[in-house]
This record gives sequence, C-alpha cells and structure tokens, in this order.
Amino acid sequence: MLISEVETPAVVVDLDVMERNLSRMAEYCRTQKIKLRPHTKSHKIPQLAKMQVESGANGITVAKLGEAEVMLDSGITDILIAYPLVGKAKATHLAELSRRANITVSLDSEEAARSISEEVSARNLKAEILVELDVGFARCGVANEDDALILAQKISELPGLVFKGLMFFPGQFVVGSNERASLRSHVNSLLDRTLETFDRAAMPVSTVSGGSTPTAYEAHMFHGVNEIRPGMYIFNDRNMVGIGVARLEDCALSVVVTVVSTSVAGRSIIDGGSKTFSSDRYLAGDGKGFGLIREDPAVELESFSEEHGHMNIKRSQHRYRVGDRLSVIPNHVCSTVNMHNEIYGVRGDHVETVWEVAGRGKVR
Amino acid sequence: MLISEVETPAVVVDLDVMERNLSRMAEYCRTQKIKLRPHTKSHKIPQLAKMQVESGANGITVAKLGEAEVMLDSGITDILIAYPLVGKAKATHLAELSRRANITVSLDSEEAARSISEEVSARNLKAEILVELDVGFARCGVANEDDALILAQKISELPGLVFKGLMFFPGQFVVGSNERASLRSHVNSLLDRTLETFDRAAMPVSTVSGGSTPTAYEAHMFHGVNEIRPGMYIFNDRNMVGIGVARLEDCALSVVVTVVSTSVAGRSIIDGGSKTFSSDRYLAGDGKGFGLIREDPAVELESFSEEHGHMNIKRSQHRYRVGDRLSVIPNHVCSTVNMHNEIYGVRGDHVETVWEVAGRGKVR
Repeated sequence: MLISEVETPAVVVDLDVMERNLSRMAEYCRTQKIKLRPHTKSHKIPQLAKMQVESGANGITVAKLGEAEVMLDSGITDILIAYPLVGKAKATHLAELSRRANITVSLDSEEAARSISEEVSARNLKAEILVELDVGFARCGVANEDDALILAQKISELPGLVFKGLMFFPGQFVVGSNERASLRSHVNSLLDRTLETFDRAAMPVSTVSGGSTPTAYEAHMFHGVNEIRPGMYIFNDRNMVGIGVARLEDCALSVVVTVVSTSVAGRSIIDGGSKTFSSDRYLAGDGKGFGLIREDPAVELESFSEEHGHMNIKRSQHRYRVGDRLSVIPNHVCSTVNMHNEIYGVRGDHVETVWEVAGRGKVR
Repeated sequence: MLISEVETPAVVVDLDVMERNLSRMAEYCRTQKIKLRPHTKSHKIPQLAKMQVESGANGITVAKLGEAEVMLDSGITDILIAYPLVGKAKATHLAELSRRANITVSLDSEEAARSISEEVSARNLKAEILVELDVGFARCGVANEDDALILAQKISELPGLVFKGLMFFPGQFVVGSNERASLRSHVNSLLDRTLETFDRAAMPVSTVSGGSTPTAYEAHMFHGVNEIRPGMYIFNDRNMVGIGVARLEDCALSVVVTVVSTSVAGRSIIDGGSKTFSSDRYLAGDGKGFGLIREDPAVELESFSEEHGHMNIKRSQHRYRVGDRLSVIPNHVCSTVNMHNEIYGVRGDHVETVWEVAGRGKVR
C-alpha cells in the first residue's frame, strides 16, 4: 500500500528516520558505557520496544503495570516501572508480574515500599527498588540526600525488597544548551551530595538512572549516571525541535490529514483535532500552534476542536482545496500516539507495516 | 463491587445523576417539540446511546464513520454524521453503511457532495444531506444564505443526494446568559435570512439542526430550529459549570484517583495526568486548573504530566497521605472518556456496570 492510499487521519512513522534515531542513541550509550532503558510510553508498541532492545537497549521503562504486562507478554523481560505503585492491588499485580521478569520499581515513600514488600515477600519473591530523587521538577522524589538515605535504609530492611539505586527525572522546562547546562549543574550538586552521603553510610548505589530525551546526549556529564530513560527520541516532535535537541529531519512521526473544509475565509480545516493529536501545547518559542505543517510552515495550526484542526492560512501562499493531504509534526508525540489504535510504518512512499498501539489505554 | 475497590485511575459515572440529565433534556425537547439527536462523541458507548434513544432521542449524532459503524452494529439506525466526509474511500464507506441505516451527513462543499453522490448513486442508494452554515465559530460551514442556497441547489441536482436542511454549531465561547443571548441574536438573524432565502427559492428545509450543550435549553429561542445535538449534557463537566449551564450536582462523571506522592512540599501528586484526563484547558473564570477535586476545592490541580496530576495543596486544610483517594471532575468530559478503554457506572457506593468505550480510537 502507498501512503497516499492510507485513509486520514493516520499516524505514520518514517522507518529510515526512526531507525537512525534508535541507532544514534544506542551508539552514544555504548560509547559512553551508559545503560539505555528507553521509556516506551512514547509508543506503547511491543514491536518497537523489541527493536530498541535489539539495537542496544538493556531493558525498557514503562509508567504503568498494564503497560509492563503488555511488554512482558511480548517477551521483554527487563522492565523498570518508573512510577510509584501505591496500594495492595498494585503491589499484588507487581508481585505476580515479577515471577515472569526482572522488574524494578521506583518510589519515594515508605508507604509504597511497605505494600510492595508485603506482597513480594509473601510469595518469596524479590523486587528491586530505585529511590526517586527530586532534582527540582517538583513532581515526585525525595527532597534531599538525607531523606534519600533514610528511605533507602528502610527499603534495605524490608523483606523482599532490594535497594538498587537512585532515579531522577530532570523534567524542568529548559530551552537551549545554556539553560540545559545550568539545569545540569543544579542536578550534579545534588547527585554529588547524595552519592557522598550514601558512600559515607556504606550503602552501595549500583544504578543511577537519569535522563529524558532533552538531556539524553548529555548523560555523560551527569555525575554518576549509568542509565538513562529517554522516550521521545525514537520519533522526536515539534517540542524537541523547538527546545533545540532535535532537527526537523529527525522527526520520524507525522500525522497525515486531509483538508475537509475551506468555507471560512482565512482558514482551512483538517480532519484531525484534539482527539487525533491531543491538546498538548507547544513549549518553546511563542508557545503558539498545535503542530507544524511539513509542506507549509507558513500555516499556523491555530486551535483544535475534537475532530477539527483549525489552520490559519492568512500567511500562506498556497490556495487550499478540499481533499488536499498534509502531514503534521505534532507538538508532543507521546500524547499523539496514545490517541490511536494503530500507527503506520512507512519506507519512502510505501507502508511497510502497521503496528497496534497495544499498551494504549492500560491506565492502571 | 464497591467503588472503593476499583483500581485507580478510573472513570466513574453516577448513574442517578446521568439518568436525571438524560430525562431532563428529553423532557425539554418533548415539551418544545424539538427533536433530540445527542452527539455521542461525549461517550462513544453504544449502551449509552441506546439509553438516550430509549429515553426520547430521535436518533444520534457521531463525528466519524467508524463511530457510526460501532453504533450501527449495536442496533441504532438513525445516525447523523456531523462531519464533512471527504474523498472516495469515505464516500464508499458511507454508502455501504447507508444500506443498513438511515444516515444523514452534513457538509459545506461541492467536492464532498460530489464524491458522496457518485458512491451512493452507483449503488442505487440515497444519502440525506444537511448543509452546514457557519454562525460565527469560523470552523466549518458556508458563510451566508446565498452560498447555502447555491450548495443546496447543487445537492438537489446530484444523483443519490437528498437535500434535507441546515445544520449549524454555535461553538463560540460564551459565558453566562447575557453572552448567550447576544450569540443567539447573531445566529437568529442569519437563520432568518437563510430561511427566507430558501423560502423564496421554493427550496424546502425540513431540518434545522442546531444545538450544543451550552445552548441546548435555549433551543426554542433559535428561529426555525427543530433538532438539537447536545453531547456533554449526559455527564457535564467543570467547563459546563464554569460557563453557567450546569451545577456541580449535575456532574455525573468523575475520575477516581489515588495520591501517589507527597514528597515535594506544597504539592501532592495523583495517579492521573494528561493521559487520564486530556490536557484540555478550563475555559471559564481564570482559566486555571485541570479539574476540580470534589472533596477539596481548595486544591488547585495545577498541571499535568502524562501520568501525574500535580496538586498545589498550599491553600488546603487537608494533610494528604500516600494512598488517599479523591474524585476529580474533569475540565472536558468528551476528551477524558476518550482516554479510557472502559468506564464504570455506579449507584451509591456500588459499581452497577462497566461499559467498554467501543467507539474510542475510531478516528476515521
């Protein structure tokens, strides 16, 4: 099948670009001797997770137990659930999954640690635990080196738990290499203090898991980091281009859409809106626009209804007609893929494969 | 099963409230002799569409052919696709579906009309067509009464098409009854001119389809409107409360979440973010916040990561603990339901039913 025959809206991935993105990251990690554990939230597709592992990843990261299960069912056996699992039901689910795979969990509270301990130890199993450290994003994570040590020591005492190391997510919004350097310096001073504290307490830290796509290629400059968890790098998106960590030609994923209305002066309407792309905003530049029209960057994709994209065409030279097809780079690939039951892998003009987004909707 | 036993995050619908919302709208339409054709985009669940029809709706509205098919498979046979179907593939799909049900399509271009005409007439079938009129929202719809008449006349001449009437969507953002009155007056002057123009041309307009949840209970004040297409009224949401067309006690749908982290001062983190709620903004008031915490309105649900909701708890009296459960009224129900594979119907504290969101992901 040709791309031009795919009904719209459709998410298409340029396989050449995606494979280049995967190789480049794997090569960087090999060279730097840093483990690569891609976050599969960006695609939720077992076949892609396997390609990541085959091209050099040491395992994968997921956010949810349901996603872990989908990945495990497809044969992936080294999974980090980078999300605090809270409550008996989730701890039980984790314990059952850990019979089948090497599963690590990150957390930042004694409550989460205790319930996991109870369920895994009741089954004579083990769970490996990373303590999450807040490096200024102010989401999850203990506040400082002392709290990290206290929690790590509690974990070591709890039956069934193995303290494995530290995890952090540098999710602060930064644009450009200068801002990233300043973020890194902040993170490094906390990492230094924490590693010293653990060293003094004779508490071994075998994993320091950092990373995100924006900081991935600077992972070797984060002190002690020996594993990273980038997600978006497989596809990249308008935000990654906007903050300066990818080029347009590194964007592997587009949404192919059709112009469905040109009745309103100064506008053309495409058949994709917030239920095709998500409503995620552009985080860089002027913050405007909901995607980049590859064929016509003069168009502003100004707003979304659920099923309509409102293109402001006032600055465009092109005269749009009903039926025109366009490809749009979304602001945020993770949220866009999550809207779809399947996505298309294309090589040149040809559809080579169709993947089911099998982890989609596994919200628990 | 008790609600307290449902694993989070989970979308739960209070059945008593939902049934009251359905009855009230059906009763209003009966009294006003206006046909009710609910937009099922708000739930995408055939069982709920059937409840709407059983409680008095004359048919349903969908946005996509794939959604129409799901509804048709469940036995609903009167469907308006309120979306311009563009291209041969969609026209063919429509023609095949129209063998099995009474399907009407809205459009605003000769291109869309021609391709539908070709496919339905080739099969000796008929498609009923509404011409969409732009009433100022500037999305789809012909600009004025003259363009509407020209398109209606072309439709009448095309084989296989039956011109049925007019459709409009008053989607402009308005808050409060004064702003709604001003919107109505604008819409009415266009409706008056258009109905006069069609009357002079002896072109009968059997359907004038208006409506949306914000304008639904004022439908009788729109000139000539004999059908409405509200969607959100079945559940309501924070936006509907914010713009003054629903009360908090009319909100049938909540997302039950769990506090998963309290490590960061001034914040508590819940296990639902943009992949649970969508990133849709609050359209009223100060525009802030991504949902309303029913148990603690002093909390601001300040921002979302994909799987985390960031609660600013600085103004709250409550001391949050990991494991606390909360229920959140989302900003926009349509986008929230669309994130989930299933939702729970509850009566009091008990889960009475679980519905599959069968139309989810039917993007084409």
